[in-house]
Amino acid sequence: MKVVIIGGVAAGPKAASKIMRMRPDAEVTIVEKGIFLSYAGCGLPYYISGDVRERNHLMETPAGVVRDAVFFQKVKNLKVLNGTEAVEIDRAGKRVRVKTLASGAESWLPYDNLVLATGAEPVIPPIPGVDRKNVFTLHGVHDAEGIKAVIAERRAEDVVIIGGGLIGVETTEALAAHACRVTVVEMLPQILGILDWEIARLVELHMESKGVKVMTGTKALAIESRDGAGGAVTHVRTDKGELPADMVILAIGVRPNVALARAAGLAIGETTRAIKVDDRMRTSDPAIYAAGDCVECIDRVTGRSCFVPLGSTANKQGRTAAVNICGGDEAFPGVLGSAVCKVFDFCVARTGLTERAARALGMEVVTAMAPGPDKAHYMPQSKPLLMKLVADAKTGRLLGVQATGPGDGAKRIDVAAAAITAGMTVDDVANLDLSYAPPYAPAMDNLITAANVARNKRAGLMIGVSAQDVKAKLDRGDDFVFLDVRSPKEYAQVRLPKSVLIPLGALRGRLAELPRDKEIIAFCQVSLRGYEAALILRAAGFKDVKVMDGGVAMWPYEKERA
Amino acid sequence: MKVVIIGGVAAGPKAASKIMRMRPDAEVTIVEKGIFLSYAGCGLPYYISGDVRERNHLMETPAGVVRDAVFFQKVKNLKVLNGTEAVEIDRAGKRVRVKTLASGAESWLPYDNLVLATGAEPVIPPIPGVDRKNVFTLHGVHDAEGIKAVIAERRAEDVVIIGGGLIGVETTEALAAHACRVTVVEMLPQILGILDWEIARLVELHMESKGVKVMTGTKALAIESRDGAGGAVTHVRTDKGELPADMVILAIGVRPNVALARAAGLAIGETTRAIKVDDRMRTSDPAIYAAGDCVECIDRVTGRSCFVPLGSTANKQGRTAAVNICGGDEAFPGVLGSAVCKVFDFCVARTGLTERAARALGMEVVTAMAPGPDKAHYMPQSKPLLMKLVADAKTGRLLGVQATGPGDGAKRIDVAAAAITAGMTVDDVANLDLSYAPPYAPAMDNLITAANVARNKRAGLMIGVSAQDVKAKLDRGDDFVFLDVRSPKEYAQVRLPKSVLIPLGALRGRLAELPRDKEIIAFCQVSLRGYEAALILRAAGFKDVKVMDGGVAMWPYEKERA
Repeated sequence: MKVVIIGGVAAGPKAASKIMRMRPDAEVTIVEKGIFLSYAGCGLPYYISGDVRERNHLMETPAGVVRDAVFFQKVKNLKVLNGTEAVEIDRAGKRVRVKTLASGAESWLPYDNLVLATGAEPVIPPIPGVDRKNVFTLHGVHDAEGIKAVIAERRAEDVVIIGGGLIGVETTEALAAHACRVTVVEMLPQILGILDWEIARLVELHMESKGVKVMTGTKALAIESRDGAGGAVTHVRTDKGELPADMVILAIGVRPNVALARAAGLAIGETTRAIKVDDRMRTSDPAIYAAGDCVECIDRVTGRSCFVPLGSTANKQGRTAAVNICGGDEAFPGVLGSAVCKVFDFCVARTGLTERAARALGMEVVTAMAPGPDKAHYMPQSKPLLMKLVADAKTGRLLGVQATGPGDGAKRIDVAAAAITAGMTVDDVANLDLSYAPPYAPAMDNLITAANVARNKRAGLMIGVSAQDVKAKLDRGDDFVFLDVRSPKEYAQVRLPKSVLIPLGALRGRLAELPRDKEIIAFCQVSLRGYEAALILRAAGFKDVKVMDGGVAMWPYEKERA
Repeated sequence: MKVVIIGGVAAGPKAASKIMRMRPDAEVTIVEKGIFLSYAGCGLPYYISGDVRERNHLMETPAGVVRDAVFFQKVKNLKVLNGTEAVEIDRAGKRVRVKTLASGAESWLPYDNLVLATGAEPVIPPIPGVDRKNVFTLHGVHDAEGIKAVIAERRAEDVVIIGGGLIGVETTEALAAHACRVTVVEMLPQILGILDWEIARLVELHMESKGVKVMTGTKALAIESRDGAGGAVTHVRTDKGELPADMVILAIGVRPNVALARAAGLAIGETTRAIKVDDRMRTSDPAIYAAGDCVECIDRVTGRSCFVPLGSTANKQGRTAAVNICGGDEAFPGVLGSAVCKVFDFCVARTGLTERAARALGMEVVTAMAPGPDKAHYMPQSKPLLMKLVADAKTGRLLGVQATGPGDGAKRIDVAAAAITAGMTVDDVANLDLSYAPPYAPAMDNLITAANVARNKRAGLMIGVSAQDVKAKLDRGDDFVFLDVRSPKEYAQVRLPKSVLIPLGALRGRLAELPRDKEIIAFCQVSLRGYEAALILRAAGFKDVKVMDGGVAMWPYEKERA
C-alpha cells in the first residue's frame, strides 16, 4: 500500500504515523514544502514571548527528540521529502507531481491513497504597505524569528496588530512581555468574534488595564513609512487616525490552502472555501483524504459546515483518515468551535454557540451570566471566573458556554463541550457529579451555578435584563430604579452609574422607600443577592422587577470608583 | 406552608433558601444542634494549614457576610434555631420535638414537610484510648480549633493519622505545613480506597517524598500514654510496632446520622445504613424529605445504592428536595463518586468505577494508562499528569477515570464525569472537541490520549501488561525481555530493574539482538514509544510482544537512579 501525504505539520504526520502503526508494510511518503516538520505552530506566540526558550522545543517530542526527516525515517519508517512542493495531482493516474525546491527537479509519486494536509495560510489584508519591512504575519517559524529579531534589536517600541482574533490577542501578550506598546486594530465592533460582545468587552477592558490599546470598529487603511517607498513601517493609517508603528503584525485570520485540491477538481465548500470531506475524512475522490486546517468541518450543534482550523482537530482528523485508509471504519463527528487562549491574567475560553450565533440561526435562547470564584471562595488561590451560558429556551438544551477572567475557565468549557456533545439540558448539567474540593472548585461548580441560573429563568423565577439593555436605558434617561443590594462597603469601593443602594439584609425593612409604579432592576456583585432582592420585591407586590445579568462583576462598561 | 429542616450545614440551608425563593410565603425553620451554621466543613484542613486564616471565612458568604441566625432571618426570612436538637419525629402528628440545649426546654414544631439534613459523623475506631487528650477527629469547627491549639503550643511534633482516606490525606498536608512528622496508618493494603492500587501507590510515593510515613496494611491497636490512665497520647500501638504520637487524628470515615429517621420508622438502606430516598429526595414518608450526608445515593454507572457524602452532592440534593416540596418536579439522578483532593504537589482525582470495582461487578474491562504533560510539553508551566482510564471491553463505554500527579487532573476528571454520565464510549471521548492552547492543554488532551490507548487495545493493536504483573514476573524470575526503548540519556537517569535498553530509533537495526522465542515486554517513559516498539517487533515477526502500561512514569515501585 502506497500512501502519499501532502503536508508535514499536525494532520499529515499524525496520519502518516498512525498508518505505519496499523500497516507496518505500507509505504508512506510525506511531502512538505517547508523545512520544518511537525512544529507546534500554536506555540509560536510563546516562543516570541520567551516562555519557550528554544525554537527546537517547538519541534521536539516530549522526550526531547527533534522531529526531522531522520527521526521520521528511523523511528516511524516514514519517508519525508521536505523542501518539496506538490504541484499537481493526477487523479486518473493516481500520482502526485512534486518539485524539489532547491534543485527544481520534478518527479511523480504514485499513490493508492493520498492525504491532503495542506493547512492554511494567513489572509493578507488588501491594503498598501503589507510587504514593508517589519510587517509580519505569525504563521510559521520564520515569522516568529523575524519578529524576535526586530525585538532583539530594540526596534519595536510601538507595535500595531491588525486583527483582534485569537492569534492577534495571543501575540499581544507576547509582545507586551517585551515592553512593546501594543495597539490592536479591529474592524469589527469587538475583538474575539468567537465571543459575545459583552464577554469580549471584558477581555478588552483587561487588555487595556495592561496598557494595550484596543481600537475596535477601526479600519487599517495603509501601512506607511516616513522613510519613503522602500522604508520600514513607521505608522499605520486608519480611519481613526495614524498610529505609530515600528512593527506591524497582520493577524486577520487564515484561509485554507486548497489550490491543489481545486486544480484537481475536488469538491470545495461553498461558504468555507475549504476542502469538502465526509465524516471518514474522504474527499469527493474516494482515493483522496484530507485533514487538518485545509478541510471544512461539521458544527455538531447546528449540523452546518464550518471552518475552525485548530491543531487539536487536525490530530483527530489525521487519525481518522489513517484508520479508514487502513481498512478501518471510523467517523470524525465534527467540532463545537471549542477554543481557549491566554490573555495576560485572563483565560478566555468558549465552546458551542454564542448568543449572537444562536439568535442569528433563529433560535429562542435563555442566557445565564455566572460570575463567581473558581474555587471555594475562602481559599487564597481562588480567582474570579466570569461565565455566560446559552441554552435553548424551549428544550433547555445547552448550546454554548463562554468564560473569561483570571479563574479556570478552560476546565468548565471542556466539561461544557462534553455536555453539549451529549445533548444535555441545563437540568442535566446542574446535576453533573463534578469533583469537589476547596482547592479545585466551589461546592457548587461555576458551570452548575450557571445552569441553575438558566433553570431559574426558564422556571420564571428570575427575569433577567442584560447589562447592554440597562446601559441603553441609562443613556436614554429612562425612569427606573437601578437597585444595588450589596453592602455599603462594596458600594463605597465601586458602583454603577445612577444606582441606589439598599443592602439586601435591610431590604425587607425599607420597602417603603421604593416606588411601586416604576420598573426596578436589582443587582449585586454577581446577582445572586440581586435575585434574592427581586424575589423579595415580587413577594411584596412589586410588579415590574428584574435582575441585571452578571452584576457588577460582569458590567462591561466603566464603573465609578472611590 | 410550614417546613422544618433538621440540620444547618450544606443541604439544610440550601433547601431552606431555595424554598424561600420559590415560596416566599412559606414558614421555614432550621433546627441545628451545633452553634455554627453553613460552615464549609471541607475547608477545615485548610483552616488547620493556615491557608484559610480566619475561622469566620469558612462561614461567610463570598461577599464576606457571616451566615449566622441573624443573617438567615434578615436576608432569607428563615427562622434558625441553633443549639437546638431535634429529638423525635411524630409522623402521624406531623411535628418534631426539639430541645434547646442550653436550657433543656422542649417544644413541638409542626410541619407540612420535613427535611432531614442530619449529616454524618466520624466513625470512631473500636480501640482503647480514643478519648485521650490530643486525640481528634476532623469533623467540625471545634475539632479544627482543638488541633490548631495543640499545634500552637508546639506540642505536636509527631502526629499519627489513623485512616488513609480523603480526610486523612488532606489532613496530612495541613499538618506537614506546620512541620509535624506525620505517619498515616491504614489497615487496607493502600490509602485512598477510591483509587486502584497502583494509582494510590503513586500518591503514597509522593507523600513519602515529602517526609510522610505511610504504613498500609497496618492496624492501630491502641492509643496509649506513658503518662498513665488520664495522660495525653504519647504513642500509638499498631500490629507493626509502636509509633510516637503527640497527637492522633481519627480519620477512618463517616457514617450517616440516621438515629432520628430510624426511630421514626423511615426506611434505611441495607448496605449503606443511610436514609433511603427516591430520586425526588423523598423518604418512605411522603411528607419527609432527606438530603446530604445522611442519605444514600444511586451510582449512575451501576444503578446500585451507595454512600458518598460530599458537600457538592448535598447542595444539589437540598435544591432538589426544595423544588419538589414547592410543588415542582425535579429528579436528582445520582452520583459517580467523583472526588478530588490535594496531596502536597499532587492533585488526586477520580470519577466512576475503578478497575477493581468494575471487575468485582463481573465486568470485562479494558484499561489505559496515559501519563503525559498536562499542557503543551514545551510550555514551562506544563506538569506531568498520570491518568488511568477504565472502559467496558465489549462496548467501549467509559466506566471510570483516575488521575494523579502535579498536572491538572481535576479538569480531565470533570470532563470524564460528563462523558460517563452521557454514556459515551472511548470513541466518543477521543473525538470530544476540548479546548486547546499551549498554556492549557496539549494538542491531544490527556483524556483523549487515554481514550485512544483504550481504542488501540480494543482494536488489538496494543497488548498491554500491568506494572503489577511485570513486577510479579520479575520477582518470580520469569524469563522474558524487559525492553526499555527510551534514549540512553533517559536510561542513565532512571531505570527499571532488569531492563535492557535499545532506543526506539535504533530498534529496526538491532532486531537480531532480541530472542524470537521469548516474551518481550516493551516500555518507555509513557509507553508511546513502547507501543511503537511493540508494533515494529510484531511486524518483524516477533510473536509474543506486549507493552507495559504507563511506562516508567507510572511504575509504582522503586526505580534505580543514577
